[in-house]
Amino acid sequence: MRIGSIEAGGTKFVCAVGDENYRVQDQIKIPTTTPEATLAATIAYFKQFSLDALGVASFGPIEVRKSAKNYGYITNTPKPGWQNTDFVGALQQNFDGPITWTTDVNGSAYGEYVMSTLTNAQINSLVYYTIGTGVGGGAVINGEFLGGVGHPEMGHVLLKRHPDDLDFQGICPFHGDCLEGLVAGPTFEARLGVKGATVPLEHPVWDILAYYLAQAAVQSTLIIRPDKIVFGGGVISEPLLVKVRQAFKKLLNDYVTVPPLTEYITMPVIQNNGSATLGNFALGLKALK
Amino acid sequence: MRIGSIEAGGTKFVCAVGDENYRVQDQIKIPTTTPEATLAATIAYFKQFSLDALGVASFGPIEVRKSAKNYGYITNTPKPGWQNTDFVGALQQNFDGPITWTTDVNGSAYGEYVMSTLTNAQINSLVYYTIGTGVGGGAVINGEFLGGVGHPEMGHVLLKRHPDDLDFQGICPFHGDCLEGLVAGPTFEARLGVKGATVPLEHPVWDILAYYLAQAAVQSTLIIRPDKIVFGGGVISEPLLVKVRQAFKKLLNDYVTVPPLTEYITMPVIQNNGSATLGNFALGLKALK
Repeated sequence: MRIGSIEAGGTKFVCAVGDENYRVQDQIKIPTTTPEATLAATIAYFKQFSLDALGVASFGPIEVRKSAKNYGYITNTPKPGWQNTDFVGALQQNFDGPITWTTDVNGSAYGEYVMSTLTNAQINSLVYYTIGTGVGGGAVINGEFLGGVGHPEMGHVLLKRHPDDLDFQGICPFHGDCLEGLVAGPTFEARLGVKGATVPLEHPVWDILAYYLAQAAVQSTLIIRPDKIVFGGGVISEPLLVKVRQAFKKLLNDYVTVPPLTEYITMPVIQNNGSATLGNFALGLKALK
Repeated sequence: MRIGSIEAGGTKFVCAVGDENYRVQDQIKIPTTTPEATLAATIAYFKQFSLDALGVASFGPIEVRKSAKNYGYITNTPKPGWQNTDFVGALQQNFDGPITWTTDVNGSAYGEYVMSTLTNAQINSLVYYTIGTGVGGGAVINGEFLGGVGHPEMGHVLLKRHPDDLDFQGICPFHGDCLEGLVAGPTFEARLGVKGATVPLEHPVWDILAYYLAQAAVQSTLIIRPDKIVFGGGVISEPLLVKVRQAFKKLLNDYVTVPPLTEYITMPVIQNNGSATLGNFALGLKALK
């Protein structure tokens, strides 16, 4: 089997070819420039292989409803030049096999879900949050993505503000102090004037971030009741998750039963930002069945 | 077909018998006293009929995982005498047909889902919030309940506080100012010293409630992306929902596309608190198929 994977990000496309055991056989990174140039380079890359299926996980917003006229499009993205791009259509003109199409964070969620189910038979559902330049969330329940009229946008929920953070307005251009506006990577510059990577873990801002991330985990716990919650993205580290688990325990106050927190709230199982690639392989394989 | 329905509440059990068209043929209310007396009266009532199936929607928390040893139990409820009550077990000793078991709010969600799908083919998912003495939420997606390790507890999410309500501590004994702690019926006595029914709609407290209810709707919109959100329970009225829709529009800021708000955020379609009874009929019929 040869399954293609496209993780389409705002700065680069990570394209890979893998087999039925999710092993990466070949990989390339293509800079995200114009839709025409980037898609042409992507298609040229995959033309070298005889693909059985192709999985795509894209930045968005994207149209995921199969009944929609513009299914497979990147829709009203803020990224210049990429509005209303017929991504899947361009691929379908060049490849015969099934093409799966979901959001970047859903792709990562699916990869983590598949790997978690392989190692733990108790896992039937998983929520994945990415905390980076932006914030997003996706959920897989019994092998299916959550989301009816469209994909989730869990990064834009509102939260109870931390008492030591009430003066910070948040940086989301749409909602100010939503989750993304309070915890995305650029909030470090906005709050402290420095990059997050330079801020030591003893700084109280990490407790503020942990409080908000714990609330996100409480929300998805109480609304979805998943078996596992994974936090990925550049802002996340295991020491930060130690703080998140402490805040989560305090906020949830044992109201519902959850698995042991070190198993329930975790970093990605898949290393080197490979969650979406593995998720695309798994989705491609599923489409072939 | 004869389908039984038990809507098991903290003050009364509403028991009904219906047909395959969800028509109520007979109904009785039994006061909720001890588990022994209440279940005996419930069983005696249904013994008059030859039931094909029985649907139960119960106050909780309850165990809904079929793999659990105590599946079918009311578990750690605060209601005196009802902790660890084997509800489904007592029924199974007396009835042969399938017995379905879910939360009271899930039962209502299912009833509203079924009625909504009958009148609108576009509806494939629905969230139901009940705002009464307590607050709960349930979701149905493609005919299945949301909830893996247990049923949702959407009433206990945290929210961004309204600027004119920052001094109110909230009344939830577990979380203080969670959704339930901020909008449940008894918050009127806590904030104003009077019953909610006596507070005119011009009073600013209704704008505060609408702001919090709109946040609940924003949360489920961004996390679940449902086709419809229904608000039921004693606190809800159509004039209040007018305010909720206004606040929702402002908070969501058109970030994702939703149906027209008068169709998206609504009162229950089923009149006279009948949502759970109809939901139980539908779940019983589904179990027979």
